[in-house]
Amino acid sequence: MDNRAIGVFDSGVGGLTVLKEIKKVLPNENYIYIGDTASFPYGSKSKQTIIELSKKHIQKLISLDVKMIVIACGTATSQALDEVKKIFDIPILGIINPTIEYLKKENLKRIGVIATTGTIRSKGWQNSLQREINDVTVFSKACPLLAPMAEEGWTENEIANLTIKEYLKDIKDIDALILGCTHYPLFEKLIKNELGDNTEIVNTGKMVANEIKKYIKQNNLQNAIEKNLTEIYLTDTECNFIQVAQKILNLENINIKKIE
Amino acid sequence: MDNRAIGVFDSGVGGLTVLKEIKKVLPNENYIYIGDTASFPYGSKSKQTIIELSKKHIQKLISLDVKMIVIACGTATSQALDEVKKIFDIPILGIINPTIEYLKKENLKRIGVIATTGTIRSKGWQNSLQREINDVTVFSKACPLLAPMAEEGWTENEIANLTIKEYLKDIKDIDALILGCTHYPLFEKLIKNELGDNTEIVNTGKMVANEIKKYIKQNNLQNAIEKNLTEIYLTDTECNFIQVAQKILNLENINIKKIE
Repeated sequence: MDNRAIGVFDSGVGGLTVLKEIKKVLPNENYIYIGDTASFPYGSKSKQTIIELSKKHIQKLISLDVKMIVIACGTATSQALDEVKKIFDIPILGIINPTIEYLKKENLKRIGVIATTGTIRSKGWQNSLQREINDVTVFSKACPLLAPMAEEGWTENEIANLTIKEYLKDIKDIDALILGCTHYPLFEKLIKNELGDNTEIVNTGKMVANEIKKYIKQNNLQNAIEKNLTEIYLTDTECNFIQVAQKILNLENINIKKIE
Repeated sequence: MDNRAIGVFDSGVGGLTVLKEIKKVLPNENYIYIGDTASFPYGSKSKQTIIELSKKHIQKLISLDVKMIVIACGTATSQALDEVKKIFDIPILGIINPTIEYLKKENLKRIGVIATTGTIRSKGWQNSLQREINDVTVFSKACPLLAPMAEEGWTENEIANLTIKEYLKDIKDIDALILGCTHYPLFEKLIKNELGDNTEIVNTGKMVANEIKKYIKQNNLQNAIEKNLTEIYLTDTECNFIQVAQKILNLENINIKKIE
């Protein structure tokens, strides 16, 4: 038993889609979420900057006494996970490995990946897929406008619809599409409409949620107290966070604290 | 006479719209342009970060021996101009003051401002307008998707059109609309269509270009050599810069150098 919270770190509001999936499979845990809204978006930043920001916020989560940490951001997973795992002595999970394991198990071979410019350019997904899955074919596409569009709350309007169509026009006939940025599940309905039923939309949040559940069970780390809290810390509170958070998490009363 | 180049600094590709206007009125000058494409967008960054980045790139322009500097970025003008003017002993112009002077002279009173989130939040435009123009009414709107959309090269498609309509829907019946981010002249056609002929679209690049021309003439700083060069330095060269630059400047051969 371990009553400490699970820490979740993201560059903004997108990681809430991951938090939502984790809460579905682990409803009795406590959560502390850090959204680096002041530095958002990570997608266009250098690797070194992303490593520095990730170190800072993981350090903060550790100081808040969490039992494990999820990097709920595609860009930060792709650019900084290996580095921070070397530095900190706490279990840290990213969103890439659990997804790759799933695709391997399901024997899916024609894989599309959409993500931020930084994530696509880092080839984090592409290299992992090619290393882990035999005969895989990877189609990748940077979609720099989707995350800012989600932060703006535009996830179901006609602008979002046309943007999805434009970005996906060259990715067809794939078995699965990885949503390589945690904002993208907000566009899942539009993406599904565009790609049709033969393509599986892979929500990386679901994959990492299952992995955490397994880890908690195997290591007997369940929370035993009947009090399930979600605390949210943001580096910039003057943003659309609450509006989007309510949409994603259906939270009525969100208590948000400002951090450096 | 002063044969040194005019330095132009921007957070990315948007400042090229300013460079274009300056070149129209001063075709015989040499230019050095720094685009901080690695840190783009400035719009969502803190004031302190923007000051640090501006100092660094202005220092670089000075080391390249320019005779004066234009901050061709709305966010950097709004957040950092006052600060860098205190530090460096070289003429530095931003895009706000020349525009305010023009509006004052034309006696325009109902003024709309569209800009990045950082610029609108800093109230740089709003405060200057209210201080300088009697009985002014200011309508401001943050448009966080427009600059990334311009960097993506989407300035005339249906996505851009619908985005403009959405952002401008509450700004009507104004005398003038200030394009408070230097990317926005790329959307001028769509904005004009939306607002109609009774609203003047104010391109801040044109305003600053006239100001520079006046300054150069008054101080007798004209370039006297028949060789008009434009050098471009970027902090990240793996971006859509060339594609967008060709669209804005109609440059056939752009020589781009990478800097830190």
